[in-house]
Amino acid sequence: MKKKISASLLIVTFILSAVSHFAGWDPTVQFALSAISVIFVAGFLGKATESVSHYAGQRLGGFLNATFGNAAELIIAFFLVKEGLFDMVKASLTGSIIGNLLLVLGLSIFAGGLKFKVQNFNVSLAGMNGSLMIVAVIALFIPAVFLNTHSITPTDTKLLSLVVAGILIVAYIAWLIFSMITHKKYLADVTVDSAEELPNEHAPEWSKGKSIMYLILATVMVAFVSEWLVGTLEVFTTRFGLSELFVGAFLVAIIGNAAEHSAAIMLAMKNKIGASVEIAVGSSLQIALFVAPVLVFVSYFNGNTMDIVFSTIELVAISVAVFIAKSITQDGSTNWYEGLLLLVVYIILGVSFFLV
Amino acid sequence: MKKKISASLLIVTFILSAVSHFAGWDPTVQFALSAISVIFVAGFLGKATESVSHYAGQRLGGFLNATFGNAAELIIAFFLVKEGLFDMVKASLTGSIIGNLLLVLGLSIFAGGLKFKVQNFNVSLAGMNGSLMIVAVIALFIPAVFLNTHSITPTDTKLLSLVVAGILIVAYIAWLIFSMITHKKYLADVTVDSAEELPNEHAPEWSKGKSIMYLILATVMVAFVSEWLVGTLEVFTTRFGLSELFVGAFLVAIIGNAAEHSAAIMLAMKNKIGASVEIAVGSSLQIALFVAPVLVFVSYFNGNTMDIVFSTIELVAISVAVFIAKSITQDGSTNWYEGLLLLVVYIILGVSFFLV
Amino acid sequence: MKKKISASLLIVTFILSAVSHFAGWDPTVQFALSAISVIFVAGFLGKATESVSHYAGQRLGGFLNATFGNAAELIIAFFLVKEGLFDMVKASLTGSIIGNLLLVLGLSIFAGGLKFKVQNFNVSLAGMNGSLMIVAVIALFIPAVFLNTHSITPTDTKLLSLVVAGILIVAYIAWLIFSMITHKKYLADVTVDSAEELPNEHAPEWSKGKSIMYLILATVMVAFVSEWLVGTLEVFTTRFGLSELFVGAFLVAIIGNAAEHSAAIMLAMKNKIGASVEIAVGSSLQIALFVAPVLVFVSYFNGNTMDIVFSTIELVAISVAVFIAKSITQDGSTNWYEGLLLLVVYIILGVSFFLV
Repeated sequence: MKKKISASLLIVTFILSAVSHFAGWDPTVQFALSAISVIFVAGFLGKATESVSHYAGQRLGGFLNATFGNAAELIIAFFLVKEGLFDMVKASLTGSIIGNLLLVLGLSIFAGGLKFKVQNFNVSLAGMNGSLMIVAVIALFIPAVFLNTHSITPTDTKLLSLVVAGILIVAYIAWLIFSMITHKKYLADVTVDSAEELPNEHAPEWSKGKSIMYLILATVMVAFVSEWLVGTLEVFTTRFGLSELFVGAFLVAIIGNAAEHSAAIMLAMKNKIGASVEIAVGSSLQIALFVAPVLVFVSYFNGNTMDIVFSTIELVAISVAVFIAKSITQDGSTNWYEGLLLLVVYIILGVSFFLV
Repeated sequence: MKKKISASLLIVTFILSAVSHFAGWDPTVQFALSAISVIFVAGFLGKATESVSHYAGQRLGGFLNATFGNAAELIIAFFLVKEGLFDMVKASLTGSIIGNLLLVLGLSIFAGGLKFKVQNFNVSLAGMNGSLMIVAVIALFIPAVFLNTHSITPTDTKLLSLVVAGILIVAYIAWLIFSMITHKKYLADVTVDSAEELPNEHAPEWSKGKSIMYLILATVMVAFVSEWLVGTLEVFTTRFGLSELFVGAFLVAIIGNAAEHSAAIMLAMKNKIGASVEIAVGSSLQIALFVAPVLVFVSYFNGNTMDIVFSTIELVAISVAVFIAKSITQDGSTNWYEGLLLLVVYIILGVSFFLV
Repeated sequence: MKKKISASLLIVTFILSAVSHFAGWDPTVQFALSAISVIFVAGFLGKATESVSHYAGQRLGGFLNATFGNAAELIIAFFLVKEGLFDMVKASLTGSIIGNLLLVLGLSIFAGGLKFKVQNFNVSLAGMNGSLMIVAVIALFIPAVFLNTHSITPTDTKLLSLVVAGILIVAYIAWLIFSMITHKKYLADVTVDSAEELPNEHAPEWSKGKSIMYLILATVMVAFVSEWLVGTLEVFTTRFGLSELFVGAFLVAIIGNAAEHSAAIMLAMKNKIGASVEIAVGSSLQIALFVAPVLVFVSYFNGNTMDIVFSTIELVAISVAVFIAKSITQDGSTNWYEGLLLLVVYIILGVSFFLV
């Protein structure tokens, strides 16, 4: 019953969004419809990924989850890169990172903390996550500092961006090898139980073939809806006087991560805070270490290289999100007040970006 | 005997300070007399607060301690705000934060460390304190960055300041709920013993009624002396060629925190380092999360809104103090060399501000 | 046999370097020969220091190791200061710090991690190292910020530099007292075993008198080769179009630390990661807390005071190296991926400095 309703909503919102796009309805209506639709297709994509992961086994499943999990963001950003809207791309990447580290993680820890006094997860994973986040911040920070102090030319910055992007992709692949092959058990602990339990709940729903087919279908649907959504943004932002930065960093990011949001919070309330942390922190690491670098290469092969230099306030937003998230997660234990602190920082950033 | 002497000194210095003010004596003499007097009235206020806390019970006592503990700073700052001396206010808030995190904490850890090889305190409290300090730095940092990069207008900065101030006050109240109600025991451990022992020592001195009366009297005295002190600062600084920043951040801050200084060091030498950390770190958190935001609202209702934007060097001073204090306290264990490191940073900052 | 070969190489490269210098050979050849020679004389100096340490006992030995360990860097920098090449000095100090924290530590942790799943060392030492690194960054950061925000004049900056340098030297001496006298055992644990084992391996090679004689000889040789190397740098950098910064921060630093590099990596592969950390982190702390301040005083007595203000990109390089090294070492446990992350940051910095 519940499944049928969500399937119907998925199809109906997708069709409405398509119609509004091709019939050229009012841009605000287009935006609203595609924004609603993206929530359902992102959820569908997330479910299909999880199902495929189940059949493909833990290791390959983890890899698929890693590459398809952020597919919506990657596809949205891909179209923005193609249209040369580099500032919007960077704003939405920034929004994805801080949205995951502050909003998703904050709500998860807060909601979980209201139900359980203290929640624990693997402290080694917390440490590794912290170091990876620091490296991500450093990689984004260095080119910006060198460019802003006039130490290197804009041309060299593009070269540096490509090199940094290449290094980050290598580091990300090495991280997959480390976390899923050489040190899988070292990072497991609390998380392993939840990971083993989860697939069982969803196991019988779809067959192997169906799961793969749905994964392909979902990816295509996300691609379409994302393009329609992006097309309306420019009109929409001017009409309401919202800054590109606010729209990219908050609206697009919240919409694009809707599926992850609900999953992470639900897991936290089942006392599986380790899984929530993996979704929230893992997703933002993926954006910084994989999605952003891939987009630099995409723009390069597109003939118009996007540098990896974020604006000062974007860098500040990412840095503060990383610092507070690292400080809160590093002891492998969370409580409701720590969730609240993450939300406090998110709200302060949100109001600041809104006033830009 | 000892009590009578300190009571006499309290009264004599207060009267001398009053006479010098109303008789219009030489400003340097006025400054010296009111500076000496403020030490005694601050001590009196601290003692009265502690005594009232004893009768009011742990929870309410903690809250009273939290709100009256920094009363002197709040009152000094209140008069500075009323006179529109916003820069001096911010300098004295900066001085209070770094004075507590570096000088008070540094001397406590150093003195305690000379007597005891290693001193320990609740590691969860250390972690929470660290995260709260990071949030405080972020909250002061964000508006400054947005204003300095011309991302928002000075007018919007005032609006942002009010929003940030409101959020910080909410976060501070939530912290009181967390640390004194929902997770009181989680943060206790070493500290609980010392907290229970302390009131017993002072218990029999004043009755309940006397304590409340003294609390009101002390607050009024602090208010008067603070106003006299502030009145002399401008003349005093020009005469000796000292910068407003140095006077506000070091002289006023050291004077205003005199009572806390001695208490924290005494507790550390009794091997109650947890209590010292609570006084020093707790006090600086209160300044950042409660006193500063309240002053923003005070200035707003006064018709001339003070923004929450600190100068670059003030922000740097606060940030470095937070980073080193967090690094040193985060393992819940201290030694003499860690105290020395805090003092090293304080001296470097002091010399730098002196040369401004 | 092996010893004879390395002794011959030491003498042959030293003589070749001397001949090329006095005969005025092509500067590139001079550079290459003295660069090769410095590797051998630095190794000779390291070995002599270790041998003297063995006879002088643990405590005094540690002190000698501390003062002679970075002799090569100090001597190279001394000649650069005398020639007034302050920018090159700062670049090479920067390079030494980041080379030790990122390259040496990274290769050690990576190589050790390939052989052992997880390597552990004393967690208290990790914490103290972290706090000392933070203080070093703060001490370099404060004068730069005050000068760059025009808060103090360039003249006062020199005064501030001398004060900061004096404070750092005091802090460094206090650190020796703390780590080698008052809290020696507290910081020991894993490291003690390796430290006790090491001298035994090398013990019988040289007599006490020979060791001291060799120590003096090695220091003199390092002094000469370093001066020859420095003399060729200017010509060399212009010819290949390399920036002073890249040469100072990467080439000179890698050459000057060659001996430490190999020792630290060898120790890590013998599962003595604590000793590797002490060499890498200890060496960079020494540069920041002792070598740099001493050079400020040297320049002062030379009549042309060098301030302690590093350029923005140097400060950024040092800060990011400290942050990631602190994040990775603070739990007292390492693995291959953490080594890789340090190398990733080193490569990003290297490419950036190359493009300057």
